[in-house]
Amino acid sequence: MQQILNGLRIVEGSAFIAAPSGGMTLAQLGAEVIRFDQIGGGIDYQRWPVTKECKSLYWHSLNKGKRSIAVDFRKPKGREILTRLITAPGENAGLFVTNFPARGWLDDQKLREKRDDLISVNLTGDRHGASALDYTVNSQIGLPYLTGPLKSDEPINNPFPAWDVLAGQQIAIALLAAERYRRLTGQGQLIKLALTDVALATMGHLGFIAETEVNGEARQSTGNYIFGTFGHDFVCKDRYRVMVVGVSLNQWNAIVSVTNCQTQVLALERELDLDFKQEGDRFLARERLKALFQPWFEERSFKEVKVALDKAHVCWGPYQTVDELVHKDPECSEANPLFNRIKQPGVGSYLVPSQPIHFSNLDRVPPKPAPLLGQHTDQILSEVLDMDSSEIGRLHDDGVVAGPSNN
Amino acid sequence: MQQILNGLRIVEGSAFIAAPSGGMTLAQLGAEVIRFDQIGGGIDYQRWPVTKECKSLYWHSLNKGKRSIAVDFRKPKGREILTRLITAPGENAGLFVTNFPARGWLDDQKLREKRDDLISVNLTGDRHGASALDYTVNSQIGLPYLTGPLKSDEPINNPFPAWDVLAGQQIAIALLAAERYRRLTGQGQLIKLALTDVALATMGHLGFIAETEVNGEARQSTGNYIFGTFGHDFVCKDRYRVMVVGVSLNQWNAIVSVTNCQTQVLALERELDLDFKQEGDRFLARERLKALFQPWFEERSFKEVKVALDKAHVCWGPYQTVDELVHKDPECSEANPLFNRIKQPGVGSYLVPSQPIHFSNLDRVPPKPAPLLGQHTDQILSEVLDMDSSEIGRLHDDGVVAGPSNN
Repeated sequence: MQQILNGLRIVEGSAFIAAPSGGMTLAQLGAEVIRFDQIGGGIDYQRWPVTKECKSLYWHSLNKGKRSIAVDFRKPKGREILTRLITAPGENAGLFVTNFPARGWLDDQKLREKRDDLISVNLTGDRHGASALDYTVNSQIGLPYLTGPLKSDEPINNPFPAWDVLAGQQIAIALLAAERYRRLTGQGQLIKLALTDVALATMGHLGFIAETEVNGEARQSTGNYIFGTFGHDFVCKDRYRVMVVGVSLNQWNAIVSVTNCQTQVLALERELDLDFKQEGDRFLARERLKALFQPWFEERSFKEVKVALDKAHVCWGPYQTVDELVHKDPECSEANPLFNRIKQPGVGSYLVPSQPIHFSNLDRVPPKPAPLLGQHTDQILSEVLDMDSSEIGRLHDDGVVAGPSNN
Repeated sequence: MQQILNGLRIVEGSAFIAAPSGGMTLAQLGAEVIRFDQIGGGIDYQRWPVTKECKSLYWHSLNKGKRSIAVDFRKPKGREILTRLITAPGENAGLFVTNFPARGWLDDQKLREKRDDLISVNLTGDRHGASALDYTVNSQIGLPYLTGPLKSDEPINNPFPAWDVLAGQQIAIALLAAERYRRLTGQGQLIKLALTDVALATMGHLGFIAETEVNGEARQSTGNYIFGTFGHDFVCKDRYRVMVVGVSLNQWNAIVSVTNCQTQVLALERELDLDFKQEGDRFLARERLKALFQPWFEERSFKEVKVALDKAHVCWGPYQTVDELVHKDPECSEANPLFNRIKQPGVGSYLVPSQPIHFSNLDRVPPKPAPLLGQHTDQILSEVLDMDSSEIGRLHDDGVVAGPSNN
């Protein structure tokens, strides 16, 4: 990670993927992200995958580099402390992210009474405030019917929560844009973001909606073919697979050349009256083209294919299982400066990524582990809220806050 | 869109999805994004989907709200003009995004000689600079083998270019973070981002890598079940489908209650010695649970299911095709302030999304269309580079620049 946001302080009250991943992104860019949790942990503190000791690899992965304060915010005193924390003064403070319901003690008006230039991001399921999760959003916007084998009409869910992850990045963008604006104008913002809108907007930005409206026909499933150009998976002699893509003309020519299909491709072009210099024409002939190229792959082992594709500058990727990715791919190892093997207390040592963004003028430092729940409780109460040790002691005695030993 | 980044100027030289979508995000947040293109358009100017008149709905969707300058940058004079544009002075200027090879006239050192506090984002395929596309990255990181029917060992590609879209958002984050840093320290940055690293980092942030390393077993495909909790699709009497999820305890109880399965669920809990208050236990029993709930859906039409699920506060979503989304879902219409129906010159009127982020203290304005290629050539040369009309005229005469009439 790199300290480009050094000094900026963000308070986060969150669960699940989207909001925590937004805060984690900012933490890995050097911001001080203070996560508050109910004593004992919130709703996602033990989400799967978990270790044999029931430690959540999910929670620890999404909360890397944050500081943790554990507070019983069912108690009025707990709420008061967190309100003070969220609205603490300072031009680099007063930034808050939550996907909790923004009512009661988290009502924006109430918080803004304490700090009127607060920048607050409130992530909801849909824009009406109803719950929605990545999976229910994904079914709604149409992608499961575009996924999978050509002749199936069964919807296929995405195992990767793309909308959550995307919403997390948009939270980071929103905070940085609003902080810039506040720096220039003095004005804060209540920022609203709905997961459903994240997905709907993206479907528009990628042309899916325009296509349906302007051309009068929605995108149809293309199986493992890439829409609008040439790309498909190919099976090698030893059953390993590769994804091969010809988007640019150079990429396309490389496929034709490495498979020695020049003559056949030219003949096909004439037969179908198409011009394969045009991406769209390659797409139109995709099934015939795939059939032309397939034998070359079937006659060669994955290793032979790899060497030949690399030599010919084909744009391709291997199909790997997650197991192969983690155990065999050097890009997923400390050979890639994206990763460091670090120790996560209570969980173990494993390969942890930083942000993929690299800034030339800042040092690289290894990613930090997630905090223990309540690890920074006393430190935060003292440093941010100026409490002395006897006041902090009373809060512990009254069960309002907890340190790491209580978990 | 909203003008929160009003005044900030970014120059973009890009193609495909990731870099253009990063610039478009900033443009929709009110930044002045100047896109330069080769006269006649770059490699992605006619990418599918296209209209009957061969206008790319893809290009126009990804370049909304930008200004366009068309320059022949194969000519030295064209390169000189673009270098001046990229490195133009001003505390709100000097930001550059590209996924073109950062060599020759775009070599960072050369640009930095003209403006040493330049903030430049350079997106590459992999971190070694080799080409990689969303599809070849996705095959590498393991998700296609986790997608699709439980008993299949065929990889299934994602029709949604998640890594590209994510990289676009990270470009926006990188620029905003670096601009903040420059404002505070005066120092610029060369920012590098590789698409492969975007995907690898995300696999780590979501716990896939930790799971494999710490637990010694990689994630297995779960078909349409959600990993680690309860969620699956259900078929209604009229063949419509719904995605139903029980992540929180309330969500879970709502499913059990609406399907009248309390007794059977309790019996199953005892039989399997599990505690369905724990998400993980619901996941362990997922197939049995799905079988318990399915009859309730099969006996009811989609409409009846919808009414009952809403009333019971179940977290659910309909499965829709893109066609149904666009034509029947009120969320994908102007009833949702995310969307405006706007006219895209040369293409038509259609539903166009803004950014899903909403800032309370700024007016909402409708999204802007994409520019015509070269639409702002003269304006940019005059306003940003201070050229007079005779100088601009000569550049046109020499074929160095072009206005919109030349396309």
